[in-house]
Amino acid sequence: MAETDGQDNTLSTLQHGAEEVITVAGLREKLATGRPLRVKAGFDPTAPDIHLGHTVLINKLRQFQDAGHEAIMLIGDFTAAIGDPSGQSATRPALDQEQIQQNADSYCTQVFRILDPERTRIEWNSRWLKPLGSEGLIRLAAQHTVARMLERDDFRKRHETGQAIAIHEFLYPLVQGYDSVMLEADVELGGTDQKFNLLVGRQLQAARGQTPQVIMTLPILQGYTRGSVKMSKSLDNHIGITGPAQTMYGKIMHIDDEKMWHYYTLLSLQPGAQLEKLQSAVAQGMNPRDAKLQLADELVERFHGTREAHRAREDFLRCFRDREQPDSMPRLRLTVPDEGMPLANVLRAAALVASTSEARRLLSQGAVRMDGERVTDHSIRCRAGNTHVLQLGKRQWAQVSLGQQENHEDSA
Amino acid sequence: MAETDGQDNTLSTLQHGAEEVITVAGLREKLATGRPLRVKAGFDPTAPDIHLGHTVLINKLRQFQDAGHEAIMLIGDFTAAIGDPSGQSATRPALDQEQIQQNADSYCTQVFRILDPERTRIEWNSRWLKPLGSEGLIRLAAQHTVARMLERDDFRKRHETGQAIAIHEFLYPLVQGYDSVMLEADVELGGTDQKFNLLVGRQLQAARGQTPQVIMTLPILQGYTRGSVKMSKSLDNHIGITGPAQTMYGKIMHIDDEKMWHYYTLLSLQPGAQLEKLQSAVAQGMNPRDAKLQLADELVERFHGTREAHRAREDFLRCFRDREQPDSMPRLRLTVPDEGMPLANVLRAAALVASTSEARRLLSQGAVRMDGERVTDHSIRCRAGNTHVLQLGKRQWAQVSLGQQENHEDSA
Repeated sequence: MAETDGQDNTLSTLQHGAEEVITVAGLREKLATGRPLRVKAGFDPTAPDIHLGHTVLINKLRQFQDAGHEAIMLIGDFTAAIGDPSGQSATRPALDQEQIQQNADSYCTQVFRILDPERTRIEWNSRWLKPLGSEGLIRLAAQHTVARMLERDDFRKRHETGQAIAIHEFLYPLVQGYDSVMLEADVELGGTDQKFNLLVGRQLQAARGQTPQVIMTLPILQGYTRGSVKMSKSLDNHIGITGPAQTMYGKIMHIDDEKMWHYYTLLSLQPGAQLEKLQSAVAQGMNPRDAKLQLADELVERFHGTREAHRAREDFLRCFRDREQPDSMPRLRLTVPDEGMPLANVLRAAALVASTSEARRLLSQGAVRMDGERVTDHSIRCRAGNTHVLQLGKRQWAQVSLGQQENHEDSA
Repeated sequence: MAETDGQDNTLSTLQHGAEEVITVAGLREKLATGRPLRVKAGFDPTAPDIHLGHTVLINKLRQFQDAGHEAIMLIGDFTAAIGDPSGQSATRPALDQEQIQQNADSYCTQVFRILDPERTRIEWNSRWLKPLGSEGLIRLAAQHTVARMLERDDFRKRHETGQAIAIHEFLYPLVQGYDSVMLEADVELGGTDQKFNLLVGRQLQAARGQTPQVIMTLPILQGYTRGSVKMSKSLDNHIGITGPAQTMYGKIMHIDDEKMWHYYTLLSLQPGAQLEKLQSAVAQGMNPRDAKLQLADELVERFHGTREAHRAREDFLRCFRDREQPDSMPRLRLTVPDEGMPLANVLRAAALVASTSEARRLLSQGAVRMDGERVTDHSIRCRAGNTHVLQLGKRQWAQVSLGQQENHEDSA
């Protein structure tokens, strides 16, 4: 829901960008009490490197802080110390306490680029989950049924397709819900893939006479490479917030125009009205690249400061200019034998070099790009049926279409 | 498998009467080691009154003891203290430690009528299940899958018919299996309905490098009343081992001839060959009641001693004789009006009393039985179409068939 210009509507701001709020009425009531709300977000200390995907949620936490509420960063050290004892998940090794502490420290350093440390409480769930004991865990397990657990999307699919679900996997949503009970959380934030678990928290709180937490799910940010998969370090499509500013700038500029609006919606802190203006400007002919530059400016500045952002922009533009394909360039057509033609010969034929030996030297120096990619191997042959854009250094370009040598076709 | 006369075949004796042994080869190997085996049987301390149904298993334990092995009575105090926190089962209330201790003491007193206390170890599973903690329980839960748990008959049926299974119910078989791990049990005994849980113990032991326990399931004893349902206190079809000897004797004599062999097989300690002889004697004309008397003698003597058994037999026979319907008795046919005839008048008509007032007096004294049931209400009317056996005191009998008074039928 877009915030109305000039109207201080906290509820509207807090809802902005959320996928789902359960329930809006509940949130309104809690806000109406006027007391600072306890806003919980869980953090799995197995993955300490924060990327832009994580910041969608952290930004929302910040918005709650700005409205006077308390952010609770819940560190799931209890389950992290157990890992996945069934050995089914390579991504959940058991961590020792020292690693967990290190990861949590590193995480905090990173999130405090966004969150206000003064209004942030850090909690460790081992504080209550260890004393819970085996008896407490059994009592907790009694509060949910197998059938309802199998309603969770991923569980249902795995069960239906005969993929194993270990029984402890049914305990983790309960443990997460129990955290909300112990924290008496007013609000819990999570990705859309967390909805089921967040709802378990509501149920367990209600069973203990607490007002159930409002749950707010946030859309999952897609990776910066082509495709719509979730941003994730393991898929190598992530944009870290602590790496070099230039890298962040370049990756943001790499996203396609459609995904740009997805990023704007989930990551930009500009008011919704501003975004609408920008979208209509692009619709009316503004170069989408300029809108993307604004996004890169905003995000890099947020994590690296104005000066670094400025430098990253300059670097990007220079590099981009250098590599940008000119609107016009020499075009030629070559016929090549069946076995193709060595790239060095093609370069000479395109008059980019005076000789094949010069071509080989420039190739080995890394001065040649073919279709945007640097090529150093001079044994490469270009074959008929292809068109290549060749670039020598920063300024010399040629487009070469390769055809087959005289073709002796039988006529019917 | 029946034991061969005169052949000391321990394996054969131990297998006798068992429904299933998994695996027989495993049992043979364990016996071959020559060391005393640890033979585990679990006991739920919510139900301290032992009845003959329990003794099927306890007898088997005793047989292991007689062969030089150690009986481990595992008291499930850990789960008893939790009860069924989902509140779905009225039969599993949480017990406090004092109740559990009392129940266990009472149980031990009773089982030592069968077991040799010298070769019996009593264990409480809270000793290792409490220190297991929430972490240990999660690790345990990781060792089994939801799909395999749903293979258990009762779980599968409940899941398929939409009856709730609370998640902690999936933890109990694991907890029971973990008991076997901690005890390094060589053998575990249980009813056929326990097979799944006993197998979990094998699996958990194997996962920890232990030689899996041999599991031996024993058939479920049916209640003494008509029908083939399990003997159970809650169904009031049980024969307690601590009640009066007369009651036990009477209940055993109450079972029908077919069920007698079921009881012989599961409860008698006579060698199998003896039982075969008895069966062929009955097949050749021996009164089944005499075979039943032998069974009652053996069982009552086991729990109450020879003297009590003898007295119970005498009491039973006297009472039986007194109430036994004679082969011949006076028979008469009476016609009665539509509204029936008062019982007192029927008694007079049958010449059992001299007057209806004498009949009423004897009725109120409880001296009259109709069809074997004592009748005291003299307002009862006997109606046409019935035949009743009337008994006055111990010796006076009459059989009365009641017909309708002159029937004015229209002839066609």
